[in-house]
Amino acid sequence: MIQHISSRHNPRVKEALRLRDARCRRQAGRFVIDGAREVLRAIAGDVEILEAFLCEPLLGGDEARRAADELAAHAGVAQTVTVEIFDKLSYGNRADGVLAVARTPTRSLAQLSLPPAPLVAVIEGIEKPGNVGAVLRSADGAGLDAVVVADPRTDLFNPNAIRASLGTVFRANVCTATTEETVAWLKRLDVPALAARPDAERLYTAADFRQGAAIVLGSEAQGLSARWSGPGVAGIRLPMHGVADSLNVSAAAAVLFYEAQRQRSQSPRGAR
Amino acid sequence: MIQHISSRHNPRVKEALRLRDARCRRQAGRFVIDGAREVLRAIAGDVEILEAFLCEPLLGGDEARRAADELAAHAGVAQTVTVEIFDKLSYGNRADGVLAVARTPTRSLAQLSLPPAPLVAVIEGIEKPGNVGAVLRSADGAGLDAVVVADPRTDLFNPNAIRASLGTVFRANVCTATTEETVAWLKRLDVPALAARPDAERLYTAADFRQGAAIVLGSEAQGLSARWSGPGVAGIRLPMHGVADSLNVSAAAAVLFYEAQRQRSQSPRGAR
Repeated sequence: MIQHISSRHNPRVKEALRLRDARCRRQAGRFVIDGAREVLRAIAGDVEILEAFLCEPLLGGDEARRAADELAAHAGVAQTVTVEIFDKLSYGNRADGVLAVARTPTRSLAQLSLPPAPLVAVIEGIEKPGNVGAVLRSADGAGLDAVVVADPRTDLFNPNAIRASLGTVFRANVCTATTEETVAWLKRLDVPALAARPDAERLYTAADFRQGAAIVLGSEAQGLSARWSGPGVAGIRLPMHGVADSLNVSAAAAVLFYEAQRQRSQSPRGAR
Repeated sequence: MIQHISSRHNPRVKEALRLRDARCRRQAGRFVIDGAREVLRAIAGDVEILEAFLCEPLLGGDEARRAADELAAHAGVAQTVTVEIFDKLSYGNRADGVLAVARTPTRSLAQLSLPPAPLVAVIEGIEKPGNVGAVLRSADGAGLDAVVVADPRTDLFNPNAIRASLGTVFRANVCTATTEETVAWLKRLDVPALAARPDAERLYTAADFRQGAAIVLGSEAQGLSARWSGPGVAGIRLPMHGVADSLNVSAAAAVLFYEAQRQRSQSPRGAR
């Protein structure tokens, strides 16, 4: 049963708009997903969809149609809205007519299931949601087994994080934890940490990613906390050949993830 | 002779504010540089500084002091402003008390000087200034010999591009050109193009970057234009192991640049 909403004063519309604010998201335990691809990835990641807002005149393309069908099947409440209301609801310029309100999933270390000799990423204290999302997208591309967003300084389901991740933030192998918990977890699993630090001696290309490894990256402003030193943690660095002394964290992450993947695909210059 | 400005209606302040608009920048042939580090890199890159705006109460740290001194030496007009005016002038939250107006440099292919077997990047039709800047920063880090911003869809000296590049946009080895010119230039120099395409057969790790090579990347939305096919151009791709079918362009660029650098540092897992 799909209802049509034509008033911007509709309480469901107002409630969805409030979720653009991080504090409201936290209080409500809900967040908004913009876009067909993102909605489909959320459903695939078993995120509980509470409400769907569809805008018929904007629904273009197979993906949007498929998302609308899936939403009709999964959402507790599905409703169509006018273009004017959809424009108000939708974030930025993504407007393929598909938007959903979902229950914020709890994603913890305990839920991760890892293969032997796993390849894991840990990002600590990253502030910009766009950077978090970009790291998740690269981790997905490189086939990492899990990503731990440690001591997060932005909520994982921030609209910019969702968008920059292309919806890969909804994969079940992404979780948040404190750094404390993450360090203990890696120790328990006997996974060595390779911490990216500009002053490390070892080049990343000299590190061995073929056994289990956790690639650990901190924020550009703050670097990694002191808990990423001592036994079980080795420093690695990227060579910097120019005038700048570091890469953007998402660029550094992509380089490290793909070098790990390259090594793990065995033959140094072979295909996989 | 440094003047102090305390009125926001000062014509120089108004003129600098207008330069936040891309069209005004184009018409005036001028642009704004925010931040001490960026200003220092612009001066190092021989960018002509026309005016300096300094805010004494905000000038913190050695870098800001050094930039203020250099500006006093290089800028045609140097002036101090109140915190209120500086806040108005400065872009986003970068506020170390240093801001300059500069003449937009012309950076063309003809000005590039390349070593034998150069490693070059070409980015075509990238829309987001932040992505352009991030690619430039990674190219600087990986030590590429030049970057050509082909058929640009944003101005190179957009504040977001400058910031994301950490000022590496001012390096003399960065230029803009049409794709047409770039293709002809590579042909003339006999530098083979390696075009990143999701449907390419060859993995990037199987490409040989040790001879001269141009790594060519297009926008995520549009991909590369048809001019990047045919003789002299080989396709390469990054393996995609997850649910998303591509990386962010700046992540892909970083991976390719550093793989090229790794290969060129000779020993596959050695140090450099």
